[in-house]
Amino acid sequence: MAPRPTPADKFSFGLWTVGWPARDPFGDATRPELDPVEAVHRLAELGAYGITFHDDDLVPFGADAATRDAHLTRFRKALDETGLTVPMVTTNLFTHPVFKDGGFTSNDRDVRRYALRKVLRNVDLAAELGARTFVMWGGREGAEYDLAKDVQSALERYREAVDLLCQYVVDRGYDLRFALEPKPNEPRGDILLPTVGHALAFISTLAHPELVGLNPEVGHEQMAGLNFAHGIAQALWQGKLFHIDLNGQRGIKYDQDLVFGHGDLLNAFALVDLLEHGGPDGGAAYDGPRHFDYKPSRTEDSTGVWASAEANMRTYLLLKERAAAFRADPEVAEALAAAKVADLATPTLNPGESYADLLADRSAFEEFDPDTVGAKGYGFVRLNQLAVEHLLGAR
Amino acid sequence: MAPRPTPADKFSFGLWTVGWPARDPFGDATRPELDPVEAVHRLAELGAYGITFHDDDLVPFGADAATRDAHLTRFRKALDETGLTVPMVTTNLFTHPVFKDGGFTSNDRDVRRYALRKVLRNVDLAAELGARTFVMWGGREGAEYDLAKDVQSALERYREAVDLLCQYVVDRGYDLRFALEPKPNEPRGDILLPTVGHALAFISTLAHPELVGLNPEVGHEQMAGLNFAHGIAQALWQGKLFHIDLNGQRGIKYDQDLVFGHGDLLNAFALVDLLEHGGPDGGAAYDGPRHFDYKPSRTEDSTGVWASAEANMRTYLLLKERAAAFRADPEVAEALAAAKVADLATPTLNPGESYADLLADRSAFEEFDPDTVGAKGYGFVRLNQLAVEHLLGAR
Amino acid sequence: MAPRPTPADKFSFGLWTVGWPARDPFGDATRPELDPVEAVHRLAELGAYGITFHDDDLVPFGADAATRDAHLTRFRKALDETGLTVPMVTTNLFTHPVFKDGGFTSNDRDVRRYALRKVLRNVDLAAELGARTFVMWGGREGAEYDLAKDVQSALERYREAVDLLCQYVVDRGYDLRFALEPKPNEPRGDILLPTVGHALAFISTLAHPELVGLNPEVGHEQMAGLNFAHGIAQALWQGKLFHIDLNGQRGIKYDQDLVFGHGDLLNAFALVDLLEHGGPDGGAAYDGPRHFDYKPSRTEDSTGVWASAEANMRTYLLLKERAAAFRADPEVAEALAAAKVADLATPTLNPGESYADLLADRSAFEEFDPDTVGAKGYGFVRLNQLAVEHLLGAR
Amino acid sequence: MAPRPTPADKFSFGLWTVGWPARDPFGDATRPELDPVEAVHRLAELGAYGITFHDDDLVPFGADAATRDAHLTRFRKALDETGLTVPMVTTNLFTHPVFKDGGFTSNDRDVRRYALRKVLRNVDLAAELGARTFVMWGGREGAEYDLAKDVQSALERYREAVDLLCQYVVDRGYDLRFALEPKPNEPRGDILLPTVGHALAFISTLAHPELVGLNPEVGHEQMAGLNFAHGIAQALWQGKLFHIDLNGQRGIKYDQDLVFGHGDLLNAFALVDLLEHGGPDGGAAYDGPRHFDYKPSRTEDSTGVWASAEANMRTYLLLKERAAAFRADPEVAEALAAAKVADLATPTLNPGESYADLLADRSAFEEFDPDTVGAKGYGFVRLNQLAVEHLLGAR
Repeated sequence: MAPRPTPADKFSFGLWTVGWPARDPFGDATRPELDPVEAVHRLAELGAYGITFHDDDLVPFGADAATRDAHLTRFRKALDETGLTVPMVTTNLFTHPVFKDGGFTSNDRDVRRYALRKVLRNVDLAAELGARTFVMWGGREGAEYDLAKDVQSALERYREAVDLLCQYVVDRGYDLRFALEPKPNEPRGDILLPTVGHALAFISTLAHPELVGLNPEVGHEQMAGLNFAHGIAQALWQGKLFHIDLNGQRGIKYDQDLVFGHGDLLNAFALVDLLEHGGPDGGAAYDGPRHFDYKPSRTEDSTGVWASAEANMRTYLLLKERAAAFRADPEVAEALAAAKVADLATPTLNPGESYADLLADRSAFEEFDPDTVGAKGYGFVRLNQLAVEHLLGAR
Repeated sequence: MAPRPTPADKFSFGLWTVGWPARDPFGDATRPELDPVEAVHRLAELGAYGITFHDDDLVPFGADAATRDAHLTRFRKALDETGLTVPMVTTNLFTHPVFKDGGFTSNDRDVRRYALRKVLRNVDLAAELGARTFVMWGGREGAEYDLAKDVQSALERYREAVDLLCQYVVDRGYDLRFALEPKPNEPRGDILLPTVGHALAFISTLAHPELVGLNPEVGHEQMAGLNFAHGIAQALWQGKLFHIDLNGQRGIKYDQDLVFGHGDLLNAFALVDLLEHGGPDGGAAYDGPRHFDYKPSRTEDSTGVWASAEANMRTYLLLKERAAAFRADPEVAEALAAAKVADLATPTLNPGESYADLLADRSAFEEFDPDTVGAKGYGFVRLNQLAVEHLLGAR
Repeated sequence: MAPRPTPADKFSFGLWTVGWPARDPFGDATRPELDPVEAVHRLAELGAYGITFHDDDLVPFGADAATRDAHLTRFRKALDETGLTVPMVTTNLFTHPVFKDGGFTSNDRDVRRYALRKVLRNVDLAAELGARTFVMWGGREGAEYDLAKDVQSALERYREAVDLLCQYVVDRGYDLRFALEPKPNEPRGDILLPTVGHALAFISTLAHPELVGLNPEVGHEQMAGLNFAHGIAQALWQGKLFHIDLNGQRGIKYDQDLVFGHGDLLNAFALVDLLEHGGPDGGAAYDGPRHFDYKPSRTEDSTGVWASAEANMRTYLLLKERAAAFRADPEVAEALAAAKVADLATPTLNPGESYADLLADRSAFEEFDPDTVGAKGYGFVRLNQLAVEHLLGAR
Repeated sequence: MAPRPTPADKFSFGLWTVGWPARDPFGDATRPELDPVEAVHRLAELGAYGITFHDDDLVPFGADAATRDAHLTRFRKALDETGLTVPMVTTNLFTHPVFKDGGFTSNDRDVRRYALRKVLRNVDLAAELGARTFVMWGGREGAEYDLAKDVQSALERYREAVDLLCQYVVDRGYDLRFALEPKPNEPRGDILLPTVGHALAFISTLAHPELVGLNPEVGHEQMAGLNFAHGIAQALWQGKLFHIDLNGQRGIKYDQDLVFGHGDLLNAFALVDLLEHGGPDGGAAYDGPRHFDYKPSRTEDSTGVWASAEANMRTYLLLKERAAAFRADPEVAEALAAAKVADLATPTLNPGESYADLLADRSAFEEFDPDTVGAKGYGFVRLNQLAVEHLLGAR
């Protein structure tokens, strides 16, 4: 049976996930608006530890100061009553028509200035609520038409914006880091910083790279046909996995935002193994919130919404159990050894060896027999079958 | 009519392109082996300026020293006779079974050492032939099975290898830079450094990042559904477009390696515009070789091979003409202005403006009317239609 | 310069195309509602010949009889004033929440009955307005979860619905045929009858297959990575191209609904050639409306809407011109002959030849030399380059 | 633990699967040729029931009669010794260069005639060996270039070929049916009859449609992003699932041919449930061979080959167990009922109801309240979570 989630599992949900009224490009909303206060209480009852939001999820766009305060006060009260935390906050730069060509990289400079102001305001709120991560999904930063966007200038403006925000956080002394969320397309034909890789590369150009990392989303990488666990591994390797969005996607198509595990289950298994245990040699690899950024399907009513929220956590915990059993299985250990998986952690050079030494090592080249070595099998299929059988709970 | 190519156009071809015997995963070779010397002469006649190769294209894998010398001598003679240059050299770490789990990142350390030696040997040859770029396509660096490859260790080994090679080049005083070639998959289920972005990010972790850039290939990025011109723009913006592989691909599928332009023609147009002119404000953006890495289709005989080689260059030159006409058209200039394309080059902040100044600017937020600004149209579709009509030679 | 469209070109537009208010899954509407009467007048001015609509485009969902009549009267008046025709009508079975699990194949039988009634009502209207084609896009007929939909029963219900509608049309004596519109996914995770092929196969099971054909859409097939011109060729070959939706799509991703030609331009060229000329031996292949089912991008205002409408027609006419020139070029004729393109129309058997005769023909097997024949080239790349150069207006 | 396979499970393997020497487009063979006789013995030991082959797998292309006989005699002896059956045979029309533009649809008529002869010869062998299914994968029937192939004529020639073969089988009185195997691309840019749907549609045009069905392959449909279980359901619904190719694929990319279940595991679960149980109301849906058409990864040696063969069967049997448990779980039954999954088998019309009756039923439309019905949830996510938990062996 599936274990029950507790706050120690660090599960968090976006307010916009359980609160999604289920409007899609071809259909009207099938569910009423959800009161954020109800969301806080229900998620707490289900065992979650955190809730996150965009500014506009909590306070209607353009609300006056009094309305804003009233919304925030009610929300804070719910947090206090439940003990739910706000580990992450983000800003909506995509819903209003003003952002139709982007926020930080809109061709219209006035929009760019407005976008910065909207984010700055929300950074203050994030800090005030104790959030440690500020996510930026630049879903409108992009283009449909190749000659209508100067991508080099767009990246320059993107950097200008992020550098300004970092400086602000530094100067205010906020204990807050930024996490960029890549996505290849939708709603724009092509979005800037489309993958984990492009965003990591962009970060390397910033004035304060140490303050900026990633918030990769399962479905977003899979929309480009990329291996999500590989992307997460590179992000971890570069010290940049600041936050994560867990959900499900069934291949290269529109952004489905299914429940975690309701997509590529094998890759989800590898992902949980990586998040929980890191590389084959052990060591926790990620200790931040396990954040679900999914949408309860449009066919569901309110009962289905909460069942879907629970499903995310149950699947994660089941995969965690399976990963632990996989790691503990002596047959797996033997197969990993046969496949030399852990040997990859050994440097290719001997301690202190230079290229000159390597060049002088005749066993490495002149006396190396590629045909013999090339004929040896790695046993990867057997290893994968062991993974499948552990995943299926069959071992 | 299509202009005729000359060496001033800097067109180069891989020896393995025109020399491909057209064996594919489901079929035997349809063409005989091509003598590299013939390739040099034919390409020179067609107006190319350079030829490139993998070590094993020129000298059979495992050949002894005398055989190797004989092959190199004949090849050099052909270069001398034709004036063709060798702007780039690369090493084959993918054909022989020994590399079936990769070269630099094979789980087998002996293979990793052998791979380094194979590359070091070829770096000497590259320098000797005057090549300025050494391409590394890590097509076997990857995995099919998520739990059979420790990706973090693999990236560590990849870095170890590239750092060693850079140090070697520095120490030898070679005027040679490395260019990594990303690809998302095929022949491995998932390849490490799958996109331009991932490779740029990896480079930022190296000991000598200034010596390492990219060799992006049209089809490789398009196999991940990514916009190639966008990827090139990011590579240029990060100063990392060291070399380029031009070809054609028709969507997300196996690697087609069609003739340049025989795929996504609109994106090819934007690409040529970018390579030739850089951003909308002008300035040459890329002045390296225009390298074709394509495969003459398996249905072609030797006549078709040379027709296809010519087709690559003709299409490039036609697109270059169309791009120049597009830039010169006053109606395009007007549409670009209306769409504020060039305005994106203007910083979002005023000269000397700090975030405090921005926060104090009421016109940026408190007095900004998002509804009015959000209602304005950008005219991107009109601009794209102008691009289409220029591409079609209809203006 | 691009030719100007006239009604003789048979261009038609959906009311929902120019009328799209540009709400997308991540953003609010950027344009106001468009009065259908204005749409009629503007399209007529641009040279269109027809306009099409869903019931709910013209009359708000659930409107009472008087409101409905008022809307229809105004619309008819505009048609009369402009001479615009209504060649096609369709019914919206996807926007209202009641259809969230489908119309004809909803798991809820009451919904299925309601859907049939909604369509029957609209079939009367279609006949009354003189439409000859009734399109059915079953965008909600599908599932996200494999075990939540009995696909065999769903197809059975789909057939029941279409059979009933055909019988109705037969009995009423309407001069109206049905055209199914396939789509692989979005808004459902998987849609039933996902491609041209699946829909053609389904039609072969109907009680009145002669009354049912297809309305394929460029982007829908391309969302599955399929070659649209190939799909159209199969539909034509099976006598089932009853209507067509022209637009643009840039690869496998969400449904973009770009302007025709603003996607895969080479395939659009082959498509127009096929629609206008049929096979290589000539003969018009499709003489129905050239219907644009696209969306003016969300970045556009009203001026951009009409510019985009015009762009669809201009591109079509330019491609038509290019296709005519391609067919007329003697060098193309020579290349087609060399590639034996027209020879495929010759039966493989001789007139009157049986398999016994073929078995007795030693030249076909025993004396056939596969190596010699296999070495001959087809010259397909040269032919394609001629197509590219004609497309570019360079010949 | 995984159950052990027995011949009663009807598992069969292609000779070309375990016998694949692991040559790929970028690499040489990593394994020696496998003797077909050894394959027969090893598969029998593992519990398989059948073996299948292309003509050229068993007898080298172009072998003389004596060589051919010798190969066949040895093979038959192995079958006799092991009791292994040959349920299916197929012909290779793709490896030799002569087929580079196709077999039945090559632009070269001589090739078309040769292809027919090659198949006719092999049909005799299939009948002689007691095969009941003759598979035809037309992997070379296609094109890279849209204007180089007259698709309508190609389909005409395809039909001519299949009609001839059917007539031959009828006349000879063979108890043999044909099964077409669709694939969207690779090795051709676009293959004719790219999906289950296109092939079903084609079959409806044949002279003997009753003799022709499908052999769908998991990975081939998934290469087009299609839901394989949906495709199989349509094939079953049209009575055309004559044979099946089971394997694994990880999304839209080159043809991976992984072990069954080493791809989309959730869809594999739904597939096995469907093959074993048919629709939700029960009844075996497919009782033919469970045929694995996969490739042992290039990283594997001979030990890995047999481990991978075994893995296919183990995964199938585990999924079969999980599917039985899913069906037997009362909570699943309750969730299926709540989601009205079985209700879809109920006709939309009442017994004897005509459209006139439906039109007269005010409860179906005039008194139907779409808002109330539209607000009801289906509980699909809960149902899918139950499926996931059964798949994970957690219930």
